[in-house]
Amino acid sequence: MSVLQGINPNIRKMKQLEYGALASRANQIKEELRKGVRRHYKEVIDVSWGDSHRAGVKPLTFVRQVLAACVYPPLINSNNLPLDVRQRAQKQLGTCAGGSVGKGYACGISEFIKRRDGGIPSQPENIYISAGSQWSIGNILHVLVNSEASPKTGVLIPVPCHITTAVSITGLGAVTVPYYLSEEQAWALQVEELQRALESAKGVCNPVALYVINPGNPTGYVQSRKSVQEVIRFASEKGLFLLVDEVYQDSVYGENSEFVSYKRALSEMGPPFSGTVELASFHSVSKGFLGECGLRSGYVELVNLDPAVMNYIQTLFSKDSSSPVLGQIALDLMTDPPKPGDPSYPLYNQVGTLELYLLRTSQHYNLPGLSCPPIGGGFYAFVRLHLTPKSIQKSKELGLQPDTFYCMKLLEEGGVLTTPGSQSFSGPLGGAGTLPAGQPLINLNALKEKLKEL
Amino acid sequence: MSVLQGINPNIRKMKQLEYGALASRANQIKEELRKGVRRHYKEVIDVSWGDSHRAGVKPLTFVRQVLAACVYPPLINSNNLPLDVRQRAQKQLGTCAGGSVGKGYACGISEFIKRRDGGIPSQPENIYISAGSQWSIGNILHVLVNSEASPKTGVLIPVPCHITTAVSITGLGAVTVPYYLSEEQAWALQVEELQRALESAKGVCNPVALYVINPGNPTGYVQSRKSVQEVIRFASEKGLFLLVDEVYQDSVYGENSEFVSYKRALSEMGPPFSGTVELASFHSVSKGFLGECGLRSGYVELVNLDPAVMNYIQTLFSKDSSSPVLGQIALDLMTDPPKPGDPSYPLYNQVGTLELYLLRTSQHYNLPGLSCPPIGGGFYAFVRLHLTPKSIQKSKELGLQPDTFYCMKLLEEGGVLTTPGSQSFSGPLGGAGTLPAGQPLINLNALKEKLKEL
Ligand SMILES: Cc1ncc(COP(=O)(O)O)c(C=O)c1O
Ligand SMILES: Cc1ncc(COP(=O)(O)O)c(C=O)c1O
Repeated sequence: MSVLQGINPNIRKMKQLEYGALASRANQIKEELRKGVRRHYKEVIDVSWGDSHRAGVKPLTFVRQVLAACVYPPLINSNNLPLDVRQRAQKQLGTCAGGSVGKGYACGISEFIKRRDGGIPSQPENIYISAGSQWSIGNILHVLVNSEASPKTGVLIPVPCHITTAVSITGLGAVTVPYYLSEEQAWALQVEELQRALESAKGVCNPVALYVINPGNPTGYVQSRKSVQEVIRFASEKGLFLLVDEVYQDSVYGENSEFVSYKRALSEMGPPFSGTVELASFHSVSKGFLGECGLRSGYVELVNLDPAVMNYIQTLFSKDSSSPVLGQIALDLMTDPPKPGDPSYPLYNQVGTLELYLLRTSQHYNLPGLSCPPIGGGFYAFVRLHLTPKSIQKSKELGLQPDTFYCMKLLEEGGVLTTPGSQSFSGPLGGAGTLPAGQPLINLNALKEKLKEL
Repeated sequence: MSVLQGINPNIRKMKQLEYGALASRANQIKEELRKGVRRHYKEVIDVSWGDSHRAGVKPLTFVRQVLAACVYPPLINSNNLPLDVRQRAQKQLGTCAGGSVGKGYACGISEFIKRRDGGIPSQPENIYISAGSQWSIGNILHVLVNSEASPKTGVLIPVPCHITTAVSITGLGAVTVPYYLSEEQAWALQVEELQRALESAKGVCNPVALYVINPGNPTGYVQSRKSVQEVIRFASEKGLFLLVDEVYQDSVYGENSEFVSYKRALSEMGPPFSGTVELASFHSVSKGFLGECGLRSGYVELVNLDPAVMNYIQTLFSKDSSSPVLGQIALDLMTDPPKPGDPSYPLYNQVGTLELYLLRTSQHYNLPGLSCPPIGGGFYAFVRLHLTPKSIQKSKELGLQPDTFYCMKLLEEGGVLTTPGSQSFSGPLGGAGTLPAGQPLINLNALKEKLKEL
C-alpha cells in the first residue's frame, strides 16, 4: 500500500500556499541582476514575508552582540563589545547548564507582561516558550481540536487572516468558521459578525474557540479597549476559548491607537469574566522591534485553564525538546531590554524610526488606483487595488487571480516582491476563493525604507 | 464549557514524562551547593538528556565562531577569528536575503548524504529542514496517521525506545505497537520479533509504519548491513513505511560496528525494493560531533514517496515558518566541515576523543551490581541494575519505580542526574509499565568525562 491511499485526510484539506510562482520568478530576476542584466531597479526588494530583516531592516546591535557573545563565549572578554553586552552574555550563560548554551533556558517573561499590563500579575508557570508563536498556536489547537468528534470541532477565524493559522486548524481536522472584517470600518472586528459566524456553523461543526489577531495581520487594525471587552463578553457567553494572537503588540503607532492586551482587559472586567474565560495569548521575537524571525522563538501565556489541561500542555511543549536557545535569549532581551544609563541604551532606543515609515506608507497607498484605510499597527498595509476591467480580463486569460497578476507586474516592473491579498482569504468553512472578482487586495509589508522610492 | 470536557482524547493518552521529580531535586541540590552546603561532590553532573554540552562537553570552536560572525557580522572584519571562519560566515550571509540572517536558508545536505552513501545520489527536493528531527518525525507522522480511521493507525516502535517519538504517535491518535529488543543479543533488532509484533496488532489497529532507531537510543546497538536489509525486506513485504531515526549516524565507535544508512542499503538492494519501499531518514545537529541541541535543527530525507504526498509534506513544513536559521547554518557546517589545509581543520578534527570516553564507559558499567552489553554507537549506555530485593522493597514503599529510586540515590550521593530506564518502556499498545519488576534499567548519557571519576 502506498502512503497516498492511507494518508491523513485532514492533510489533503490543507490549503496549499501559493507564493511559489512569484517567489521563484523573484529568484530568477535576482540571478539575472547578479549576472549584469539591466532593469529599472538594481535589486529586488522582498516585502512578501513578515520578516523585516529580509526586507533590509538592520537587526538591533545590542541583541546581536549579546547573542554572538553567548554563542562564542571568548567574546565576553573582548574589549570590542560594550560592557553591558558582555555582562548580559555572562549572566545568560550562567543560567545555562555546563556554561554553554544548551536546553532548558528559562526567562522572566512574566515580569514583562506584568509591566505591560499595569501591574496585573503573571505567573511563570502559565507561560510556555516554543519555536515561534505559530508553533505555540499549533500546540494549543492540538489540545482543543478533537479530530474524532462528530460534528467536527470548529474554530472561528477572521477573514482576511494570517493564513498559516487557518492551515494549522484544517490540518488538525477542525473546521474554520470565518467571520469577516469590514474594510469600510478600517477592518474593525464586529461582534454582530461573530454572532452571524457562530450561527452559520450550526449543523456544520461544533465551535470551541475564537481566534483573534490584534493588532491585525494583514489588516493593521488595532482593537480599542471597548472592542476587546465586547469580544471577551461574547466568548464568555458562548463558552468559547480565546486564542489571541498578539504578536504585533509592540508595533502600534496609529493616532489614537493603543494596545490593550486581552489578559489585561479580562482581568480589569472582574468577576465573573476574570476567573472563567479561558485565554491563550501569543507573542514572538519575530515581530515587534526585534524582528528576529530567523531565531524562531515565541511564548504563550495561558489564563484560567484547568490544571489538568495544563499538565497535558506541559507534555506537548516538552515533547518537542525545547525551543531554540538563542531565540530564548532573544526573548529575554526583548522582555528585559537595556535601561537608561546602560552603554547600549541610546542605540537600542532608536527604534521609533520604523514606525514613521509605516505611518508614511499607509498614506502612500492612497493614490489613484489604490486605497488603504488608516493603519493602527502591525507590519502590513492591506491595500485595495482598483484594477481596470482590462487588467482583470488579462489576469483571467493567464489563469491568475487579479491580485497575483498585479503582484507579478509589481515584481517585473518595480522589483518589489509582495504577497497577493487573496492568500489571506481562506473562504467559508475552509474552502478557497470567496474574494469578489475585481476587488483584489494586496498585502504589503511596509517596513522597507526603500519603499519610499516606489 | 471548559476546555477539559472537550479536550482532544489523544492528548489524554500521551504518556506524561516523569523526569520531573528528579530534575527538580537536582535543581535544589545545585542551589544548595551554590549557597555553600557541603556534599561529596562540588557540582551536579547532568547526563539525563542527550545534550552533551549540558553535560560539560565543549562546543566545537569552528561552529561557534562561524555562528557568532553570522549573528554579528562586524566580526567578519575582526582579525581575532581565523580566515576560514570569516570567509565561511561571509558566504553564509551571502545566501541570506538582506545580508542578515533571515528565513529561507537552504544548504547542501544532499552532497553530504551522497558522500556518506558512497556516491548514491540524493536530491535536495527530497530533503526538508526543520527545528530538530523530533519535529520532522512529528510532521511525517502527521501525514501517515489518520486519526479518524477505524481501526486506528498503528506504528511499530522498538522497546526500549526514545520516548518522545512514542508520545508523538499517541498524541496524533495512532497506536504504538511495540517490538522488543533483546538484551541478551546486545539489544539487536530481530525480524521474527517484528513479525510477532505485527501479528499482535491484528484486530487492534492497522499498522502502516515501522519506526527504527539506528544506532539505537537508548540501547547503543548498531545494525549490520544484513540486519538493515532484513528490515527493508520485511517492510516491503508488509507494505510498511520506514521511519528511520539515524540521528546517531556519526557516533559509531564499537569494534566491528559500521553505520550503513537505510537509504544506501535500499538503493544497493536494487529492484523491486529500491524503487518501492517508502522511507524517511532523520538526522540532526543535536547529535553527532556537533551536539548542538540548543540550536534546534535537523532534516529528513524522503525516498520513494508519491509526488502528491510530497506536496502535502511541503505545505506542512512551510506552515511552520522555517526552522531556526542558526541551526540551519550549523547543519551546513556539519555537512560541509573544514577540510585539510583550512586553518580550522586541526582543531575541528579532534573529535575522536569523545568516542574513547564512550567506549571506556561501556566497560565501566560491567561492575558488580551492574551490567551492560557492548555498545556499538549512540550517546547512551543502557545499564542493567541488579538491585537487591531490599532496595526494590524500599522503592515500592516510596511509591517509586526501582530504577527511579536508584537514580534518586545516584543524584543524592553521587551528584549525577540520570534518566530512569523505565522511561524508555512505553509498554504494549501505548500502555505503561511492562518492565519486569526487579530488572530496572538505567539510561546514562555517557559523554561526560567526569563520569570516569564515578
Ligand atoms: C498574526 C501572526 N501570528 C503569528 C505569526 C508567526 O510568528 P512566529 O514567527 O512567532 O511563528 C505571524 C507571522 O507572520 C503573524 O503574522
Ligand atoms: C533517537 C532520537 N531521535 C531524535 C532525537 C531528537 O533530536 P532533535 O534534537 O533533532 O529533535 C533524539 C534526541 O535525544 C533521539 O535520541
